[in-house]
Amino acid sequence: MKDKYSLGLDFGTESVRAVLARVVDGEIVASSVSRYADGVIDDYLPGTNIKLRPNWALQNPQDWLDGLEKVIIDVTRDHGITPESLVGIGVDFTACTLVPTLEDGTPLCFLAEYRQEPHAWVKLWKHHGAQDQANRINQIGIEQNWDLLPYYGGKISSEWLLPKALEILEEVPEIYQRITYFIEGADWVTWQLTGELTRNTCCSGYKGPWQKKLGFPGKEFLISINPGLADLFERKVSGPILAPGQRAGGLSKHWAQRLNLAPDCPVSAGIIDAHAGAIGAGVSEPGVMLLMMGTSTCHMLLSEHEVLVEGISGVVEDGIIPGLFGYEAGQAGVGDIFSWFVNHCVPQYYYGGKQLDEGDLHNLLIKRAEKLIPGESGLLALDWWNGCRTPLVDADLSGMILGCTLQTKPEEIYRALIEATAFGTRMIIDLFQNGGIEINTLRAGGGLIKNNLLLKIYADVTNLPIEISPSELISGQGAAILGAVAGDAYQTIHEAVRKMTPPISRMIEPNARMHEYYNHIYREYERLLTYFGRDPESPMKRLTNFRNFILQEKEEQV
Amino acid sequence: MKDKYSLGLDFGTESVRAVLARVVDGEIVASSVSRYADGVIDDYLPGTNIKLRPNWALQNPQDWLDGLEKVIIDVTRDHGITPESLVGIGVDFTACTLVPTLEDGTPLCFLAEYRQEPHAWVKLWKHHGAQDQANRINQIGIEQNWDLLPYYGGKISSEWLLPKALEILEEVPEIYQRITYFIEGADWVTWQLTGELTRNTCCSGYKGPWQKKLGFPGKEFLISINPGLADLFERKVSGPILAPGQRAGGLSKHWAQRLNLAPDCPVSAGIIDAHAGAIGAGVSEPGVMLLMMGTSTCHMLLSEHEVLVEGISGVVEDGIIPGLFGYEAGQAGVGDIFSWFVNHCVPQYYYGGKQLDEGDLHNLLIKRAEKLIPGESGLLALDWWNGCRTPLVDADLSGMILGCTLQTKPEEIYRALIEATAFGTRMIIDLFQNGGIEINTLRAGGGLIKNNLLLKIYADVTNLPIEISPSELISGQGAAILGAVAGDAYQTIHEAVRKMTPPISRMIEPNARMHEYYNHIYREYERLLTYFGRDPESPMKRLTNFRNFILQEKEEQV
Repeated sequence: MKDKYSLGLDFGTESVRAVLARVVDGEIVASSVSRYADGVIDDYLPGTNIKLRPNWALQNPQDWLDGLEKVIIDVTRDHGITPESLVGIGVDFTACTLVPTLEDGTPLCFLAEYRQEPHAWVKLWKHHGAQDQANRINQIGIEQNWDLLPYYGGKISSEWLLPKALEILEEVPEIYQRITYFIEGADWVTWQLTGELTRNTCCSGYKGPWQKKLGFPGKEFLISINPGLADLFERKVSGPILAPGQRAGGLSKHWAQRLNLAPDCPVSAGIIDAHAGAIGAGVSEPGVMLLMMGTSTCHMLLSEHEVLVEGISGVVEDGIIPGLFGYEAGQAGVGDIFSWFVNHCVPQYYYGGKQLDEGDLHNLLIKRAEKLIPGESGLLALDWWNGCRTPLVDADLSGMILGCTLQTKPEEIYRALIEATAFGTRMIIDLFQNGGIEINTLRAGGGLIKNNLLLKIYADVTNLPIEISPSELISGQGAAILGAVAGDAYQTIHEAVRKMTPPISRMIEPNARMHEYYNHIYREYERLLTYFGRDPESPMKRLTNFRNFILQEKEEQV
Repeated sequence: MKDKYSLGLDFGTESVRAVLARVVDGEIVASSVSRYADGVIDDYLPGTNIKLRPNWALQNPQDWLDGLEKVIIDVTRDHGITPESLVGIGVDFTACTLVPTLEDGTPLCFLAEYRQEPHAWVKLWKHHGAQDQANRINQIGIEQNWDLLPYYGGKISSEWLLPKALEILEEVPEIYQRITYFIEGADWVTWQLTGELTRNTCCSGYKGPWQKKLGFPGKEFLISINPGLADLFERKVSGPILAPGQRAGGLSKHWAQRLNLAPDCPVSAGIIDAHAGAIGAGVSEPGVMLLMMGTSTCHMLLSEHEVLVEGISGVVEDGIIPGLFGYEAGQAGVGDIFSWFVNHCVPQYYYGGKQLDEGDLHNLLIKRAEKLIPGESGLLALDWWNGCRTPLVDADLSGMILGCTLQTKPEEIYRALIEATAFGTRMIIDLFQNGGIEINTLRAGGGLIKNNLLLKIYADVTNLPIEISPSELISGQGAAILGAVAGDAYQTIHEAVRKMTPPISRMIEPNARMHEYYNHIYREYERLLTYFGRDPESPMKRLTNFRNFILQEKEEQV
């Protein structure tokens, strides 16, 4: 297998990346990235003066096709890859990134007649226009004891397929009627490449919602939300549901020619980018929790047991690795909070006359914050600057910081913010462990692994060793592994992961004394979480309600 | 009296100011300010590498003498003031700013043998090293139903004479033995100028503690705290106690010569700076609450009735104006908090390439914060960056801010901090009014009256009109009024106030709708105050305790 390769296509929010990995050992021999021409469409609809609402985020699928062509040609051309040496292609994608299409897969926004209709475009995962719809679905779900709800921490997100489809049905029913299929970006790209319409357990399971045992939401429940939704899943979300690593189809002649690859080259069923990251980071067995730490954090975990944990984003059988329950939990704001602090709260004297960029400022704050020990600053924060995903699933919660004095220094606040996110992660670990799911190691991936102070704090707070993923391109690496499995280079994902991920080279061990110190602070974090987060009359919630009232008053006066 | 003048000496935290006022109408004809060379000593002991503990704050009395000489010469020399034209001198001072002296008044820190002993130096009012001592005194006081306690909101402060003296007795008993007198800065300066050791009802009453009817703490009570304290007040705090405006003595020959003033020029008994401000701002009758708003805020109020209000700093008969009960309440951090924010938390983009000073930054923040309406930011703070004086009398409480999101802007935090201090003032007003003491107008003095946004917020939060004191130098003006009374230019302080303070020229009226909005937020402030401030097991208190433990651990490891 020395001269065999697998290709991972990693479709992110701003760009697509191709990763070419050697099948025998997973070594990445080439990678290439291409930014989407229209990027995240959140201001004006491209080529128009149609202004989008503030919580909207769209995408142009033409960018995905242009991008994949460019990056595949980049990585194959310069590395002597012959068509025969490529065993398979894997695709990971942001989700739920939803393409409305005609019968033949043409996105509605490709039709001239719909170019100016925002709802005909792709709704990117972070499109938040369907919050009202999600709220109503959740309310009806609670009233009716909806069987799917407990698999998703008791609440589905406005980012998912069902609320996004309902938003279109309610706002532009004629467009809804015109749509033959709603399809995830991952599955749409696979369809384009192979000519076969398939779906995948990961996107369906975590963002549908869909469960192997229960399927998609039932017709009766859908009708109780809106009669127009009755056949949504039966017709508009139809197609076989395959697990990641299963062969979705072979590369079409058209694309084989365009890309100079072999016709029928196997293409794997898609997967969500973060979940591909779990595979790329070498997580294919129970006991290791992956932290994908970027602007927000995704927690991914595998188990042989199904436990319905509070506030998790989802538990999906076969959702990541066939034969295991895949768990996803999340913290809605992590790196975003540190960036907010660096951009909005760092004072003049930190610059010392120089102009520092954001990275320099992080390094300066880290250097000073490293000298502190737990509890020394007296500060404690609640890490809800972007709401709380797990365990409280409440986007309206807000950040808090406690313990400020006239002596409080910026590096102390910076450290307290990192600690708050570490307490949030510990809270999630506690919930899993209390449910009987074993976690004995953390594995860290994503942009924040460059922050050593953060890794140290996470180890000390959780009292778990943190293995640092050796690859920086774990999502693409995971997609390439799935391509190898789809191409039968390995029989199982487990085997492919063992061979195709590099060994862990860096590990952070917890310090017992620091952990003991943090236990004291964490107890107060738990109490504050209860006081502010669980009481429906908490001052935090009442202030947010009052804020919403005031913003409405202000709008009405304009 | 056209060519007669009176001199007020106003000793603040960072500097001393002389105010020369015309006796006939109070017009300030000259003023001069001089910063203390050693300022607030809170890092290293001057000329040594002896590091002070974090809650310490000392001062060098040499700075006071150097300063007063400079400013008196400044204001008299250039204004053709003959020795005969000066009718008297008044002195106001921060308190309790405690000088330990020998028999002849020499401060211990002037002796070479004690230069390196921190406890031999002057403990500035905001020295907080005696919190343990204050806690124990209060506990014993509660157990023994100590008769003085209810006059001080049920708790004496660690800033006062008794805890500060006890701190020295416990930590350096040999220094305590060596001290002949503990004396307030106000009385020490008066002693230096006149050669007469006297004390004053204001410092004694508000910071001793001392009450006209009860005197200082009794011997039995002192012994129950520590037998070494038995004769503290009898010996080390002895001397006649005079009311402000009474003649403490005449200027000594030595100082008359140095300052080119008349020997025996009358010097008034001292007064606390904030209380002098009440007089200088024209408050000599009930119904008007003076807010002296600077780094902290003092609330001063006169009444014919004695009511024992929660957490007031003190009610003292004759403490400000003979014949009335003088009330003092306080907020431990106000302008200090805004300065902390401006110095430690304002980001690069606020500068736009320019170097702005603190004043410019305040103005920029005010300009942007003025555009917000109550509740719009969703933020709410507890204004305890420097602890809480009234009503909780707890220096260990800390600041909190709630409602942060990734969209939170610096001007929103700045406004929330101002609002928090306004809520703190409203809480104090509510307590007085609930006790039956009438308040129908606020009068504002001090450095913060330049901040129009702040005045507007205070009026809206309290629903009271705010009269702005026309003089910026109200403490110095008050001291000058006392100098005129001591010099017999007027028979009573009332009469002198009527003649020597200018009429009110600026007034801020509350807006009813804004007040209604603030009522909603204030209710949450009250709830947070109860949760964090009153529960002995509150997360805030436990974190501070843990912080103290950690700092001790750290110290022991060094």
